[in-house]
Amino acid sequence: MSNSISTDICIIGAGPVGLFAVFEAGLLKLRCHVVDALPQVGGQLSEIYPKKPIYDIPGFPDILAGDLVRNLMRQIEPFHPTFTLGERVEHFRKLDDGTFALTTSDGTEILCKTIAIAGGLGSFEPRKPAIDSLDAYEGGKGVYYMVRDPETFRDQRLVIAGGGDSALDWTIFLADVAKEVTLVHRGTTFRGAADSAEKVKALHDAGKVRLVLSSNVTHVHGDGALEAVTITANGGETESLPVDSFIPLFGLTPKLGPIGEWGLELEDDAVKVNTLDYSTSEPGIFAIGDINTYPGKLKLILCGFHEAALMAQGAFKHINPDKKYVLKYTTVNGVPTL
Amino acid sequence: MSNSISTDICIIGAGPVGLFAVFEAGLLKLRCHVVDALPQVGGQLSEIYPKKPIYDIPGFPDILAGDLVRNLMRQIEPFHPTFTLGERVEHFRKLDDGTFALTTSDGTEILCKTIAIAGGLGSFEPRKPAIDSLDAYEGGKGVYYMVRDPETFRDQRLVIAGGGDSALDWTIFLADVAKEVTLVHRGTTFRGAADSAEKVKALHDAGKVRLVLSSNVTHVHGDGALEAVTITANGGETESLPVDSFIPLFGLTPKLGPIGEWGLELEDDAVKVNTLDYSTSEPGIFAIGDINTYPGKLKLILCGFHEAALMAQGAFKHINPDKKYVLKYTTVNGVPTL
Ligand SMILES: Cc1cc2nc3c(=O)[nH]c(=O)nc-3n(C[C@H](O)[C@H](O)[C@H](O)COP(=O)(O)OP(=O)(O)OC[C@H]3O[C@@H](n4cnc5c(N)ncnc54)[C@H](O)[C@@H]3O)c2cc1C
Ligand SMILES: Cc1cc2nc3c(=O)[nH]c(=O)nc-3n(C[C@H](O)[C@H](O)[C@H](O)COP(=O)(O)OP(=O)(O)OC[C@H]3O[C@@H](n4cnc5c(N)ncnc54)[C@H](O)[C@@H]3O)c2cc1C
Repeated sequence: MSNSISTDICIIGAGPVGLFAVFEAGLLKLRCHVVDALPQVGGQLSEIYPKKPIYDIPGFPDILAGDLVRNLMRQIEPFHPTFTLGERVEHFRKLDDGTFALTTSDGTEILCKTIAIAGGLGSFEPRKPAIDSLDAYEGGKGVYYMVRDPETFRDQRLVIAGGGDSALDWTIFLADVAKEVTLVHRGTTFRGAADSAEKVKALHDAGKVRLVLSSNVTHVHGDGALEAVTITANGGETESLPVDSFIPLFGLTPKLGPIGEWGLELEDDAVKVNTLDYSTSEPGIFAIGDINTYPGKLKLILCGFHEAALMAQGAFKHINPDKKYVLKYTTVNGVPTL
Repeated sequence: MSNSISTDICIIGAGPVGLFAVFEAGLLKLRCHVVDALPQVGGQLSEIYPKKPIYDIPGFPDILAGDLVRNLMRQIEPFHPTFTLGERVEHFRKLDDGTFALTTSDGTEILCKTIAIAGGLGSFEPRKPAIDSLDAYEGGKGVYYMVRDPETFRDQRLVIAGGGDSALDWTIFLADVAKEVTLVHRGTTFRGAADSAEKVKALHDAGKVRLVLSSNVTHVHGDGALEAVTITANGGETESLPVDSFIPLFGLTPKLGPIGEWGLELEDDAVKVNTLDYSTSEPGIFAIGDINTYPGKLKLILCGFHEAALMAQGAFKHINPDKKYVLKYTTVNGVPTL
């Protein structure tokens, strides 16, 4: 059985702009459900540069990207948003009563009165290694491009491939969860943080992780579910290793993806909007943050915050065409409860 | 002799939006000079609600208005803005080379390539009591509607009038500076903070402040400079008091003021702008924050921040018509030095 969720605004994308949209909607007493293809919130800030300082968030001379995401999560808490993480929104349907139905990659259905696309540069898609019939084992049959729930791998025999932070961090983390972890890396030095590389080497020396350097996973085998992988060294020698799961972690690249096929007016891979309320060419659908475009557009977090505020007004009017909304200052009225 | 200042952008108004504009301009290596009619920075946040929490500044679940102003001052420090405080910008002239000359109420001249009006609800003007020929003693001749520099009043005989926070706070502060302070209040209870009222009463009991309640200052006297005021009790009795300065503090009200007469296109007492870069009808003059209007406008601080970012791009293009500017992330490039 798939989930079905019903809400005022479905926000696609849990980046900083999608998160702040929950706050602005909440001030107007609109409820939000947020969907993101990634297993965590924060968009580019969490995926690409969580530990880097940002200097142009107004009021913060500097703030780590990860801390900004944490602050935004605290700020929207009063409005109790709900989340579907690790699922990509794929399809959209307009229902007869003017509301919308969205479906995710995992079949979750979201019924909503309005949609706020805050999809950034698009959903982050894994870079997949070129291995024959790898896709035959996707969807829970042994090949995973990201770790949504570490418990999936409890007591399993794992092969992780990659040389960056994700590969190192998950090797360290899963060493305690899985029965056996092999990290395969095509080079001899890691691109990830030096202290993570040190930790992996220490785990290797302690016999808790197997490290196969100067090598690649070149084949996957199994009958229905994954049973083994072939590792080929740069010199040409091969080894077949029985495994339960193979996790290639070669980074993620953003792709506009399915939203590009919804019939919304686009320009240069971005969704065209009206700056009155950041509405798209389809009434009831708005686009805010990096994913939209309009004259003067700057792909900055602070601009997305403004767009979220005006979008909330537009969504309010779409949902309540007859009510007049009067702006209230939070300082004077506080934050309403939802 | 009056001052003369020369800069890239003259920002009129040191409210949150004017202050953040310094940052966005600085990222593009544009220098700013900021002018405000008030003696302190922060606009409405400092003047009206410094100690109240704001809940809708993105990334701050709550922040005191005064703290936001302090943070913004720290954030713009790297760009070394200069300030003229306590002077109102009155006139503007277009020079033959396309630059501008602004003049303040005190005769300071600011030569600039572009102007960013961040004047909020207008410059805060004092509410003046209805006393005959009060204006004859303005301009340094004994009547002051705000305290710019407490040293002006060192060893003087002062009469302060009013019952709000400003009257109480300045009575407390100036008790240590002036030779003698009389606070005149038409009522018997104060509107200001309870602990400030307590402090004033304690100073009165200690003989450091004279308190005249249920009374008004009704006349001012002097030959050129102020020499005495008449205080009339609600019952009708009058008293003449020799003074050096009289400081009526009955609050400030914002007025669009001289900017309304510069020939810029207006709508409902606000300056009409193009959301491309928040430019006004006059090339090289921009308007950001509460003072501007456009379809969808919300008078929110976070919206002004966005407007400041796009304004800076417009100012850059106006000043460097032939240079192409490519957006740089602060996270990647840091904050340039100016
Ligand atoms: C290295 C780097 C440094 C930067 N530095 C700065 C800086 O200093 N200042 C600044 O203002 N900006 C900076 N940026 C840009 C900033 O990160 C973006 O402007 C910001 O992340 C945009 O936020 P967003 O919420 O619009 O989108 P994103 O952060 O991109 O989040 C969008 C989310 O939507 C999800 N999504 C997309 N499509 C779907 C779908 N169909 N279904 C489900 N989920 C979907 C994605 O998975 C993603 O998590 C920087 C960017 C990078 C890469
Ligand atoms: C009680 C209250 C609560 C509020 N709560 C919130 C809230 O919760 N969230 C929110 O986002 N907003 C809130 N606001 C609104 C917010 O304060 C304004 O949006 C914000 O101050 C606008 O900033 P600004 O920089 O555009 O203008 P201002 O803060 O108004 O600053 C403008 C400055 O320009 C100066 N100036 C004007 N003309 C001239 C001139 N000719 N020469 C020299 N100086 C001049 C003025 O003296 C003033 O200092 C609230 C406002 C009030 C009054």
